[in-house]
Amino acid sequence: MNPENALQDFMRACQTRAEAALDARLPAATRMPERLHQAMRYSALGGGKRLRPLLTYATGIALDLPLDLLDGPAAAVEFIHVYSLIHDDLPAMDDDALRRGKPTCHVAFDEATAILAGDGLQALAFHVLAHDPNLQVPAENRLAMIETLASASGSYGMVGGQAIDLDAVGTTLDLPSLENMHIRKTGALIRASVKLATLAQVPHDKAAADKLDHYAKCIGLAFQIKDDILDEESDTQTLGKTQGKDRDHNKPNYPALLGLNGAKEKAQELHEEALASLAGFGAEADLLRALSLFIIERRN
Amino acid sequence: MNPENALQDFMRACQTRAEAALDARLPAATRMPERLHQAMRYSALGGGKRLRPLLTYATGIALDLPLDLLDGPAAAVEFIHVYSLIHDDLPAMDDDALRRGKPTCHVAFDEATAILAGDGLQALAFHVLAHDPNLQVPAENRLAMIETLASASGSYGMVGGQAIDLDAVGTTLDLPSLENMHIRKTGALIRASVKLATLAQVPHDKAAADKLDHYAKCIGLAFQIKDDILDEESDTQTLGKTQGKDRDHNKPNYPALLGLNGAKEKAQELHEEALASLAGFGAEADLLRALSLFIIERRN
Repeated sequence: MNPENALQDFMRACQTRAEAALDARLPAATRMPERLHQAMRYSALGGGKRLRPLLTYATGIALDLPLDLLDGPAAAVEFIHVYSLIHDDLPAMDDDALRRGKPTCHVAFDEATAILAGDGLQALAFHVLAHDPNLQVPAENRLAMIETLASASGSYGMVGGQAIDLDAVGTTLDLPSLENMHIRKTGALIRASVKLATLAQVPHDKAAADKLDHYAKCIGLAFQIKDDILDEESDTQTLGKTQGKDRDHNKPNYPALLGLNGAKEKAQELHEEALASLAGFGAEADLLRALSLFIIERRN
Repeated sequence: MNPENALQDFMRACQTRAEAALDARLPAATRMPERLHQAMRYSALGGGKRLRPLLTYATGIALDLPLDLLDGPAAAVEFIHVYSLIHDDLPAMDDDALRRGKPTCHVAFDEATAILAGDGLQALAFHVLAHDPNLQVPAENRLAMIETLASASGSYGMVGGQAIDLDAVGTTLDLPSLENMHIRKTGALIRASVKLATLAQVPHDKAAADKLDHYAKCIGLAFQIKDDILDEESDTQTLGKTQGKDRDHNKPNYPALLGLNGAKEKAQELHEEALASLAGFGAEADLLRALSLFIIERRN
């Protein structure tokens, strides 16, 4: 089987697995308060590339961990991602009506429900890491996972990146500032997706974890550069979200700073650096390699 | 010294202690992203009764725990409370301009920053419980604290109560439904404030913890009933938030269901039940007793 087919099979299998992991951990839509739980399920289920769970599972495969162990961490990181999308789409933030090809949460429900659904998903993410019965690791490992996820998603991480992004609208960021913003905004959570899997390894192989962390750092930035490129080049239907939005909002982005070709070269360099940091791994890391390629070649 | 003075001294000392605990755990206002961190500090510092930290500390005193142990848990529960106030005050939610006698976060900053400040405070609460160096308890106890706080603040707890509250505007709730809403909306976090302290006790005295939990359940509901009474009887200046808001919004409340006197009787009954559940404790629980009385006699 060629690597591309192997990746496609893995992605499909893991997307199904992630969907089931999320579904099992979300409150039932019939449980009170129904509307809130419906909104949480609406945004969390039935769509998305599930890149973060894919990275958690692929890292688990690279470390030969049983995937059962990783359903909780994969779900937790995705709950954080979904909550951030819900809040990011709100009228007071990016004011977007379309996400993953369907109406955003505040459009399908209402703004107040969307705010609360995001808040509830964040709490759920930490509850899963603290409590998930399948996560058979020592309490210290769970705590390290919670600390990792809280750091990555908090005001020094994802939320901080969004704040910098908002403040930067209409201004010109230089390359280091743009990079700093993206390292927080999307990079921190992508890095956490890999780190949560390494923290499920007992005993912990620190050298391997450090290499995987560097891989994650590279692909996190490559992911954002590719996002900027897609926002420039793609169309709304393919993206599943409104195209040209960043440019219209006068947001700083890589093609504006480096040119379209310069941005593509930078993404390619980061992909190669990601592969280099996996040099010590064998075929067990092929999925991580393929995911890195997928990130810079995807169409949405 | 009479009990009232003892309570006042304790409250002042613990409010100062809580303020310092919050301050030390909040990101510096000079740290990037500055505006976000300023908003988090603006809402978290310099005001409020600090009822939840007071309960955490007073429970610690009842169990003879060193208070250093409780600075992290007290801060964590207050960060959750503050984030919920920020989001609750947003235009899409209660649309309130005044909180603790000063402009609400989205008025002093802007809506997007207020949403993110709330999100960042929630992440910070879990980070503190996972990481706080003063919290010298086994990892299992920390995990139980995180699970407790995530449950109490999530869609089955506080966030769920807010969703029920929103759905209930303009409708008539019967007494059990009103109680169910309040048990989640404010009761769950008040109960968690006490429970976090009992989870810091090593070895854990389950019988004592159960009694304290029942105490917390009673005062949590009494607190909300008193809030409804104050919303009916007090004025905006004394309250530090807009008076008559619930009635104006046609929100279900205790005085509407039970009459003003009926609501006061119910609060008194809950206070007595709270005292009864402390019957097995000696003078070390006097502050908890005084706090219960304070809750039903406070003027704001």
